[in-house]
Amino acid sequence: MAEFVLHEDPLSGNCYKIKLTAALLGLPLAIRQYDIRKGETRTPEFLANVNANGRIPVLQIDDADGTRFLPESNAACWYLAEGSALIPEDRFDRADMLRWMFFEQYNHEPNIATLRFWLAFVGEAHLTEQQRAQIPAKRIAGEDALTLMDEHLADREWFVGSSISLADIALYAYTHVAEAGCFRLRERTHVCAWLDRIAALPRYTPMMS
Amino acid sequence: MAEFVLHEDPLSGNCYKIKLTAALLGLPLAIRQYDIRKGETRTPEFLANVNANGRIPVLQIDDADGTRFLPESNAACWYLAEGSALIPEDRFDRADMLRWMFFEQYNHEPNIATLRFWLAFVGEAHLTEQQRAQIPAKRIAGEDALTLMDEHLADREWFVGSSISLADIALYAYTHVAEAGCFRLRERTHVCAWLDRIAALPRYTPMMS
Repeated sequence: MAEFVLHEDPLSGNCYKIKLTAALLGLPLAIRQYDIRKGETRTPEFLANVNANGRIPVLQIDDADGTRFLPESNAACWYLAEGSALIPEDRFDRADMLRWMFFEQYNHEPNIATLRFWLAFVGEAHLTEQQRAQIPAKRIAGEDALTLMDEHLADREWFVGSSISLADIALYAYTHVAEAGCFRLRERTHVCAWLDRIAALPRYTPMMS
Repeated sequence: MAEFVLHEDPLSGNCYKIKLTAALLGLPLAIRQYDIRKGETRTPEFLANVNANGRIPVLQIDDADGTRFLPESNAACWYLAEGSALIPEDRFDRADMLRWMFFEQYNHEPNIATLRFWLAFVGEAHLTEQQRAQIPAKRIAGEDALTLMDEHLADREWFVGSSISLADIALYAYTHVAEAGCFRLRERTHVCAWLDRIAALPRYTPMMS
């Protein structure tokens, strides 16, 4: 049986995705914390042993094949969830789930997670000129992503198929804290109902648990 | 048997990934072209019928279940390649392949593909101030991605396991044209050898075919 260690920063929604996936699956997950604001994922030791890309989360997998490290939040969720109901059995739905997970990393996270980090944790006064110049474009792209999600959820309960999948978990992580980046959630009633649906799941675990 | 239509712009490396995947698998793919520089993927018709996100590529799948549309290049590659040798059988390798595909969309494409598009197709003189201000950061992040790839390939022929997978295809698309964005390839000898390895595959098809 594999044992898992999550290398994480508790402020990171990308890390939370993996914790929420493990919680919903009932899988135990040991935690090793880093503070990204102190550069703890850019040390020579971290780069050599955990992730040459200098980023968390990384899922450490200890099993009969030894110790292996898996970076990228959505890939780690996939590893944990293989064979479970969190990955649809239907071929189109499975690919469509990945579609929303790639959408999350391309259209959602770089806008919504970045503005949350800049505004709620770095602080607007400490941003560089270059960061400040990117705010308007990230604001528009993030709002567009939320609008697209709201329209998609207008006539369905989950992003793909008829039950929760990794697509919902991936998109939940930074959506449910999007107001910390000054994004507007309340008017997106379908998104809000979907957020409530996830938070009501029996094995749900909150972000800062 | 399913029939496939690729909604694409031939300048797009994201579209090319799907064409290369189909070529390597020997799957026929009909083509429907759009010019993204003329806004042809933002028309009301496209948004309503093909992709509400206003982007290509989109893989159209026509089979016994009707007509369905799958956006996101890497998700479309996954759909085409399911059950083939382009997706590793080993559980860790399969997740590790997805890890490189998410890396591609997060660390590689927004830097390398964007600078290629801005410099080779829009033209530096036509960039907005905001775009121009992003060039230095995208330059550094893109070079870092190429360096990481070169180090990873130092002792292996393919990104994951011992044969080509979707990770190689996803990363090949914008890497092999990275010099059009003024990125340096020649000094990355492992990357160059890997590019040659892919171009020498029996069913290989070039980007502008």
